[in-house]
Amino acid sequence: MGDGGAAPIADCGLRIVLVSPRNPLNIGAVARAMSNFGVTTLRLVNPYEVAFKEARSAIRSHYILERSEVFDSVAAAVSDAGLVVGTTALGNRDLHVPLYRLEAAGRLIREQLSAGPVALLFGSERFGLSNDDMSHCHWLFRIPTRDEHGSMNLGQAVAVCLYELKRDEGSVQNQFPPRGVVNAGDMERITAMMIEALERSGFVNERTSESTHLKIRRLVRRLDIPESDAVAWLGIFRQILWKLKAGNGA
Amino acid sequence: MGDGGAAPIADCGLRIVLVSPRNPLNIGAVARAMSNFGVTTLRLVNPYEVAFKEARSAIRSHYILERSEVFDSVAAAVSDAGLVVGTTALGNRDLHVPLYRLEAAGRLIREQLSAGPVALLFGSERFGLSNDDMSHCHWLFRIPTRDEHGSMNLGQAVAVCLYELKRDEGSVQNQFPPRGVVNAGDMERITAMMIEALERSGFVNERTSESTHLKIRRLVRRLDIPESDAVAWLGIFRQILWKLKAGNGA
Repeated sequence: MGDGGAAPIADCGLRIVLVSPRNPLNIGAVARAMSNFGVTTLRLVNPYEVAFKEARSAIRSHYILERSEVFDSVAAAVSDAGLVVGTTALGNRDLHVPLYRLEAAGRLIREQLSAGPVALLFGSERFGLSNDDMSHCHWLFRIPTRDEHGSMNLGQAVAVCLYELKRDEGSVQNQFPPRGVVNAGDMERITAMMIEALERSGFVNERTSESTHLKIRRLVRRLDIPESDAVAWLGIFRQILWKLKAGNGA
Repeated sequence: MGDGGAAPIADCGLRIVLVSPRNPLNIGAVARAMSNFGVTTLRLVNPYEVAFKEARSAIRSHYILERSEVFDSVAAAVSDAGLVVGTTALGNRDLHVPLYRLEAAGRLIREQLSAGPVALLFGSERFGLSNDDMSHCHWLFRIPTRDEHGSMNLGQAVAVCLYELKRDEGSVQNQFPPRGVVNAGDMERITAMMIEALERSGFVNERTSESTHLKIRRLVRRLDIPESDAVAWLGIFRQILWKLKAGNGA
């Protein structure tokens, strides 16, 4: 399960384009996030050369990084994409193009990916995308972070974007099979044993025993005991009762 | 907009609990991701001491890290939470508790947060959560990464989880105001000028001019020209036509 050894996977049409990245750890982190989410095409525009070399020569250098391509212009790096979108932290720049939140951008990008390649541009760690970089974009999007905070870490930003693109709303519906709960018969058996245990322990007051029984019955019903645990709970109370009776008899 | 100086924000009820983290960069990255998404309560269970000290004394140490608390057991770190959920990479362990995808988990966590605190457990970078750690969890979830890949980077995993919790499906609906497109009158004016320009350039063949006109009309309609760009396009063709006519006259 090593990061470096994972088998190459099919190109999904997404091109992750890092413009002027400067930090080797960030470049490596982007490659790792891409592998996590099954995206393989990484392109770098004018990376800081030392950083790129360092990232590539790291012990656990990633196959995605080894296959990455370097370009000397944004235009060249995005030339095969039908849609080019840029990421931005919400600044005060006059953007000239529509700016969407990631949730909305994800939907548009997924639609376009079924038709052809899409390039996602991420700017340098310090300055983000320049106005010139942005002029190659059909539109921009931002990750919905707090406005006051400024930009995200580059590797984290890529991870969040890829998660949005790969998330599956349908999985929410599929993942809640109604859990079988203990049937009323076992529920009442557990209740009866619990009441007996409490009586034998002196917890139940003679004078108020009837209302106490009701309280306990309600308590047990609120437990939401899984069907598969019924036998375990019955066994536990049986054992406790056995011990309580043995103690009385002694 | 420095990372370290952001003002503290209200506690949203979420507790990010790192169990035995070992890497100071990761601990710092988690703090930064939390600040990005407006989550302030960080708890560490038995962090590797050197790593924690190093993260805390970093030049850009984060206010979230400075306010973080250290515990010596998972039980103590989650004691105020009504719901305790753990993260796991999908392994072969026998989990004993339900395992959801993040999309589904996000919905459940958001619901519970309206009732009270929720603790999110993240295991150590190398081993994840132990079976003992997991026994404190009501259920587990996993980020939907490729099964073959193994685990995510800790900072990225926290960022992705917090994004899921903060994402707003409603924003998708709100962010596509129907863009005004150029009206049919301007569209036809642009078409007419384009046809004239092409005729004057010798592009339009006399014999096939009628079908060419239809083609051009359809070409222009497919452009989806924004309303606000109509004046610019009309100006561009007016200028080209002027030059073409001036050239002919010369």
